[in-house]
Amino acid sequence: MATPIDPASAAFLLAESRQQPMHVGGLQLFERPEGAGPGYVREVFEQMRRDDQVAPLFLKHPERRLKAAGQLVWKRDDLFDIEHHVRHSALPEPGRVRELLELCSRLHSQRLAWERPLWEAHVIEGLADGRLAMYTKIHHALVDGVSAMRLMQSMLSTDPDRRDLPAPWAARPPTKAVQTRADAERSLAQLPAQVVRSALGITAEAAGMPGALVRTLTRGVKGETSALSLRAPRTLFNQTITGSRRFAAQDWPVDRMRAIGQATGTTINDVVLAMCSGAVRSYLAELDALPDTSVVAMVPVGLNAKQSQVASTDGGNAVGCVMVQLGTHLADPADRLRSVHDSMRSGKEALSTMTPAQIIAMSAIGMAPSVITPLLRLNGVVRPPFNLIISNVPGPRSTQYWNGMKLVGTYPLSIPINGMALNITCASYDGTMGFGLTGCRRTVPHLQRLLTHLDDELAALEKAAGL
Amino acid sequence: MATPIDPASAAFLLAESRQQPMHVGGLQLFERPEGAGPGYVREVFEQMRRDDQVAPLFLKHPERRLKAAGQLVWKRDDLFDIEHHVRHSALPEPGRVRELLELCSRLHSQRLAWERPLWEAHVIEGLADGRLAMYTKIHHALVDGVSAMRLMQSMLSTDPDRRDLPAPWAARPPTKAVQTRADAERSLAQLPAQVVRSALGITAEAAGMPGALVRTLTRGVKGETSALSLRAPRTLFNQTITGSRRFAAQDWPVDRMRAIGQATGTTINDVVLAMCSGAVRSYLAELDALPDTSVVAMVPVGLNAKQSQVASTDGGNAVGCVMVQLGTHLADPADRLRSVHDSMRSGKEALSTMTPAQIIAMSAIGMAPSVITPLLRLNGVVRPPFNLIISNVPGPRSTQYWNGMKLVGTYPLSIPINGMALNITCASYDGTMGFGLTGCRRTVPHLQRLLTHLDDELAALEKAAGL
Repeated sequence: MATPIDPASAAFLLAESRQQPMHVGGLQLFERPEGAGPGYVREVFEQMRRDDQVAPLFLKHPERRLKAAGQLVWKRDDLFDIEHHVRHSALPEPGRVRELLELCSRLHSQRLAWERPLWEAHVIEGLADGRLAMYTKIHHALVDGVSAMRLMQSMLSTDPDRRDLPAPWAARPPTKAVQTRADAERSLAQLPAQVVRSALGITAEAAGMPGALVRTLTRGVKGETSALSLRAPRTLFNQTITGSRRFAAQDWPVDRMRAIGQATGTTINDVVLAMCSGAVRSYLAELDALPDTSVVAMVPVGLNAKQSQVASTDGGNAVGCVMVQLGTHLADPADRLRSVHDSMRSGKEALSTMTPAQIIAMSAIGMAPSVITPLLRLNGVVRPPFNLIISNVPGPRSTQYWNGMKLVGTYPLSIPINGMALNITCASYDGTMGFGLTGCRRTVPHLQRLLTHLDDELAALEKAAGL
Repeated sequence: MATPIDPASAAFLLAESRQQPMHVGGLQLFERPEGAGPGYVREVFEQMRRDDQVAPLFLKHPERRLKAAGQLVWKRDDLFDIEHHVRHSALPEPGRVRELLELCSRLHSQRLAWERPLWEAHVIEGLADGRLAMYTKIHHALVDGVSAMRLMQSMLSTDPDRRDLPAPWAARPPTKAVQTRADAERSLAQLPAQVVRSALGITAEAAGMPGALVRTLTRGVKGETSALSLRAPRTLFNQTITGSRRFAAQDWPVDRMRAIGQATGTTINDVVLAMCSGAVRSYLAELDALPDTSVVAMVPVGLNAKQSQVASTDGGNAVGCVMVQLGTHLADPADRLRSVHDSMRSGKEALSTMTPAQIIAMSAIGMAPSVITPLLRLNGVVRPPFNLIISNVPGPRSTQYWNGMKLVGTYPLSIPINGMALNITCASYDGTMGFGLTGCRRTVPHLQRLLTHLDDELAALEKAAGL
C-alpha cells in the first residue's frame, strides 16, 4: 500500500543529491552501568536489534511512481531487514574522541538509499575510556532535526534502574505503569514526527505556500522586515559543496554561559551565538578570509505562538527565523555579544509583527533551506541572505538513562547544503551545551579548529564580562 | 586539464547507479611481523597515508562536461585529500572473520563519489587473532578486476626484510636495486591499468565495437558458436538488485583441488567451478528454488593469444568467455564435475575458432556485463544467457610481504549487476585458493551459507574422486 508524500517531506527528498544528502544525525555518549562485562556493547547491540516490532515511521520508504507522473509515495518495506539498519561498529586504537568524530564524519557522509526505510543506528565501541557511543541518522523527510533529537531521547528515562526501555524505532511505547512524570511530559513534547509534518503540510497548503513564502521573501527584499537580512557578505562557506562531511563536537557547562548572560544582560542563546561569532571570526581570519562586514547567521527562534507545532531554540513551539548579525568584523568579544543580542532582539520584534501565515512561511525557510535559493533568485536576489545556520535545541535538563546506561553527552549532526557549507547545531542536556558542527569536508577545511576557537571565545567572553 | 575517457571506461561510469556501484575490491589479510607493538596497525596506516606522491591513475576523477554534450572527461583532482582515500577502521568484539566480512560488506556497498579519485583503502584492526586486514576498492573504469588485484599485489615483495615498499597508489616504484627477479616478472605481468584500458579501447574501436560485439552476439543467437549459451534458466540470482552488498570469503588449499583434478582428468579450474556448482545447487535447493535445467556460469578464460593484453583465468593473456553448464540439475558431484569439464572444453574449442575481433568483443562482454543486456535485447533475446559470473584470477605462487607483514590471504570483491545478483571471483595465492562471493544483500539471502556448501562440495568431490 502506498500513501502520498506531503509536500514538505517531498521537498527534502527532491532536494537530495549525492553532494547534498538530506539526513540529520545524532551522536550520543553513554557510560556503562556498573558491573558491565567485556561483552556489554554487543549485548546492547543485540538487544536493540532484537526489537523488531518497528514503528511505521521506520518501516516506510519513498518510491517514485512512474505511472503517476513521478509522484512520490511512501511504501511499506515488506522485506524489512533490521540488520541493515542497526549496526555494530568499532573505533581503531587509541580510541579517542578524535577517532569517534572521524567515524561519525564518514557515516554522516553516506546517503540513505531510497529502496529501504530512511534511517540507521550504529552502536559504537572502542572508546578508550570505556564509554559507548551511538550514532543515529534519519532522513529529514521523516523528521526535522529537533524531532530527530527528541526521538532519540524518547527512549530514555530518568530512572537508572529501568531495564524495559525500547529502542527509539520500536513500536511498543515505554511501559505506562512505571512512566515517570518527566517521561510523560517529554512524550507530550516530542510530538510524533508524522503529526508535525502533516500539521505543517496542511497549514502551509492552507496558507497558500509557496505563495506566502514568496510574499515574505519579497517583503524582505523591499526592506519591510528586519527578520530577513539580505546583505550577507560572500564567505568561503557559501560555495558549492561535495558529498563528504566533517563533524566536530564538544560540550561546555551551561552555567558558564548563564553567568556571562547574567553579567551582561544577555541570554544563554546570545552567548552561544557570540561563541560561534568569535570562533567563526578566528577561523576565517586564520584562512585570511574574514569579510569586512558581519557574517550573518540564520537562527530559528521560538515565538510562543500556539498555531505552530514546530519546536525551536527557546523551547517554545512556534518557529520563526531571525537573521543575526554575528559581528564577526568587530575585534572585541563584548562588542560581538552586543551585536548578537541587539540583532536577535530586533529580529524577534520584527517577527512578532508578522502574520501567522508569514511565520509559517519563515518556518518553511528554516526547515527547508535548500528551497530558498531558487525562490530568492525569482525575486532577483542572487546572493544568499545569510552565511550559515545556527540552531540551539533544548534537551532534557536531568540525567537520563537507557536500560542502565547513563547518557553523558548528546550532539546533533545537521545538513550542509549547496551555498551553505557549515551548520552549527547545539543541544543542551543535563547542564551542558553540546555543539555539533557539520561541514562539507572540502569547502570547510580544518573544521575541528572551530572547537578550539569556541573554547577560547567562551573564555574571552567570561573575561569581557568580568568573571 | 581534462582528457577524454575511453569508451570502455565510460561504459562503466555510465552503467553505474545507486543500485549498481561499479567498483571492484580486494580484501587482504596480513600477519604482523615479529616484535610489532600495540600501535603497529596505526603505524602501518600512517605510513600508507604519508605516501602522498600519488600515481596519476589515483589522482584523476571523472567529470561530465556540460558544454560538450555531457562528454565524460578525466580531470586531475587539484584538491586531492589523501585522508579521504586512506582510512583506518576497526572491528567490534569479538573480532572474528564474521565481523570483518560484515564491515567489508558495508564498505563495498558504498558508491565512490565522482567528485574525487575513484578509490579507497581501509586499514582494518581488531581481528582477535592479531592479523591486520586491508580492504581496497577501485572503480572498474580505472582498472578491471584482475588488474585491481594485481595492483594491490604490486606493492608486495617475497623478501620479508624489505622495508621500503611503497603503497599501491604511490608514484614511486619499488627501489630497483633490491628488486628480485620475481618482482620484476610480476611488474611485467601487471601491466599498468591505463595501458590495458587504452589498448582495449583502441583495438575495440579499430574492430568497430560495438559492431563486433553485436555480430558475436548475433552468431550466438543463431547457434553458430557454443561459446555463448542462450538458454539459461531463470533463477533468483537474475532479478533486479538493490544497492547493498553481502560479502563472504574463505580459502582452501590448491593441493586438494589439484589432487581431485589429477584423479579425474580435470583441471584445477574445473574443480573450482564444480565446487561452485555443488554449492549453488545446495543453496538453491534449500530455498526451494533449484531449476530443472542447469545453471549457466559465464567464465572468462585465457587463450594464449598474443594480441590481447587482458589477463584471465588460466594465466594467459587473451580472454574469451565460455558459458559453462554447471550441471546443477545433476545429483552426483562426479557428474557435475564432468558437465563442467565438457562444457569448458567445448566452449574453449569454439572460442579458438573465433577471429581476434570476435575474441575482443567477447572480452568486452566479460569486462562490461552490464552492457550485454540491452545489446541482447536488440537481438531479440529477453532472458539472460547466463545466471552468474565466476572468475578465477591467478595470483602470486610464493609467500609475499609488505614491509615485513606477511600476506596470508587475498579475496576479491566484485560487482553484482541488475539481473546478475551474485558474483564469485577466486584468486589463488601461495598454495591457497581464495573465494570471494559478492551478492546483493536482498536478492541473495544468507549468502554466507554458500561457504559451508563450498566446503561440503570440496569434500564430496574428493570422495567421488576416490581420495
